[in-house]
Amino acid sequence: MSQKVKIAVDAMGGENSPRKIIQGLEISLKEDNNNFFYLYGDENLIKKEIHKNSPVSKNSEIINVKEKILDDESPFSAAKRGKETSMWKSIESLKDKKADIALSAGNTGAMLVISRLLLKTIEGINKPALAALWPNQNDMSVVLDLGANIDCNEKNLSDFASMGSALFKSLFNNKRPRLALLNVGLEETKGNEILKKTFSILKNNEINDFEFSGYIEGNNIMSGNIDVIVTDGFTGNVALKTAEGTANFITTNLKNSLNKLSMLISYNSLKKFKEKLDPRKYNGAIFLGLENPLVKSHGSTDSIGFAHSINVCNKIVRGNLIQKIKSNLLTVDEKLKQ
Amino acid sequence: MSQKVKIAVDAMGGENSPRKIIQGLEISLKEDNNNFFYLYGDENLIKKEIHKNSPVSKNSEIINVKEKILDDESPFSAAKRGKETSMWKSIESLKDKKADIALSAGNTGAMLVISRLLLKTIEGINKPALAALWPNQNDMSVVLDLGANIDCNEKNLSDFASMGSALFKSLFNNKRPRLALLNVGLEETKGNEILKKTFSILKNNEINDFEFSGYIEGNNIMSGNIDVIVTDGFTGNVALKTAEGTANFITTNLKNSLNKLSMLISYNSLKKFKEKLDPRKYNGAIFLGLENPLVKSHGSTDSIGFAHSINVCNKIVRGNLIQKIKSNLLTVDEKLKQ
Repeated sequence: MSQKVKIAVDAMGGENSPRKIIQGLEISLKEDNNNFFYLYGDENLIKKEIHKNSPVSKNSEIINVKEKILDDESPFSAAKRGKETSMWKSIESLKDKKADIALSAGNTGAMLVISRLLLKTIEGINKPALAALWPNQNDMSVVLDLGANIDCNEKNLSDFASMGSALFKSLFNNKRPRLALLNVGLEETKGNEILKKTFSILKNNEINDFEFSGYIEGNNIMSGNIDVIVTDGFTGNVALKTAEGTANFITTNLKNSLNKLSMLISYNSLKKFKEKLDPRKYNGAIFLGLENPLVKSHGSTDSIGFAHSINVCNKIVRGNLIQKIKSNLLTVDEKLKQ
Repeated sequence: MSQKVKIAVDAMGGENSPRKIIQGLEISLKEDNNNFFYLYGDENLIKKEIHKNSPVSKNSEIINVKEKILDDESPFSAAKRGKETSMWKSIESLKDKKADIALSAGNTGAMLVISRLLLKTIEGINKPALAALWPNQNDMSVVLDLGANIDCNEKNLSDFASMGSALFKSLFNNKRPRLALLNVGLEETKGNEILKKTFSILKNNEINDFEFSGYIEGNNIMSGNIDVIVTDGFTGNVALKTAEGTANFITTNLKNSLNKLSMLISYNSLKKFKEKLDPRKYNGAIFLGLENPLVKSHGSTDSIGFAHSINVCNKIVRGNLIQKIKSNLLTVDEKLKQ
């Protein structure tokens, strides 16, 4: 694909927007000039942030939209009054095929609701899901669902497996992922009935698009042996937030423990450690299951974090995520018919 | 209570037993001489570990039991053939009122099944639960259930609230705990139907034995604002193991980042940091809901970890845990009648 990836950006969502958005675009364009941006938001505010000679001028088009979804607005209110907002318009551009993917650092609940209102669900998917990248000992894993669906059945979980596997392949050059279901033990008898039913749907590796490795427990999410981890939105949300809280607890306590001299002496190594765990690298939740891809950047991330989520957008489009999901689902459908 | 606390110890369960068990008893007796131990296990092996002049000789009685439950044995097998094992006999001693509490570092599943076979459930409790201590920014919290019950309804969760609150008070000098339900958001509308029903049962603080603080998210478990965190056994198990995995991931990566000189310079502070997070301090899952209390020490812990779980046993008995649970349940019963 020599054409540029067209990204519809909600320039107004999240903290310090549109400033961090425009700065994020700049960082991204300096590294990779293969994206074109449609910027939805207040033209005056956006233009103020684009400096002379900035690569953003040449690689973007501003669509002036005065209103925006508030970060603390309820999904219901967003759906009701959202039509003239930057988030709505950016998502709508997918429907019109103007852009390949939409990106926002705004309100997650609003984005979930608006995208479901405007975009079709992929045929065969009942429940779209929210996936994220999770650091591990080797590189990173895909984990889903992270909160879009509180209650899930075996059909939903096996759809998540197809979609998560497609996402991993889009991001990591078609590498066949090792996939597991998050559970409280490794034996086939462990867990609830839904997990057992999902296990029996997924266990036929001959027709899977992934290597099904059975169950995984919470303590092994970061060990690097599994690439895609599937769970319901309730468990996934609790696991993700618990990991964030634990990481925060340890690094805060550690920071208070090290004195300045020893920090100085280990400066370079600590920098590498910090870089490896930098949450900005794992920034960007991916909406899976709609006819068009969408990425949600963290509301509180900065321009570097936003640039990372632009990179995710590019990989998703170049990696033909939606086509990959559809072909995975076909395989599963055939399997269920047998 | 001037009488000694009588602890029935399965001397054969877990790694390096009975050696670590006897060494754990020694450590504990040197700090606090208020326990008496009934040691169930192979008399010859146990006696070999008790050195001359050891405080263990004067403060224990060995009950010779040749067989033991294996660490990897299925709960079904343990129930079927377990009658002549050290774990079974130690739990049976509670039934006969010989001991106040039972302690094992053996097989958790076997201990759950054998204790339910031998001991009565507290009237009004349908499902006993497994609670643990979790470090937080101030001190530690009680979290339950951690895996005894995969599926829980609102009655089970409100029972867990009564039992967890009683446990916290037993351990921390009757301090009224702040209690919350683990959920994916803080608003009343978040979560599944069971959580919403539990919320409405617990929200009347006037008759609670605890201060109900609503919902808590995974990232705040360690913030120190909540003392008792209630969840179903599936979510609790995933959260606990995810936290363990995250802590392990970060400390391993950190260790590889710090050079020897800077470790030396920050030696004292790093020692304090390590002590604060020492998993041996939080060693000991507590079985709640049976007519007698039981503590499960981690199978892989050492003598120091085992000594910590002896300390937990002492506090539970001195703190009248079972009486506290019963009086909490009475209040809840009255509440439900209104």
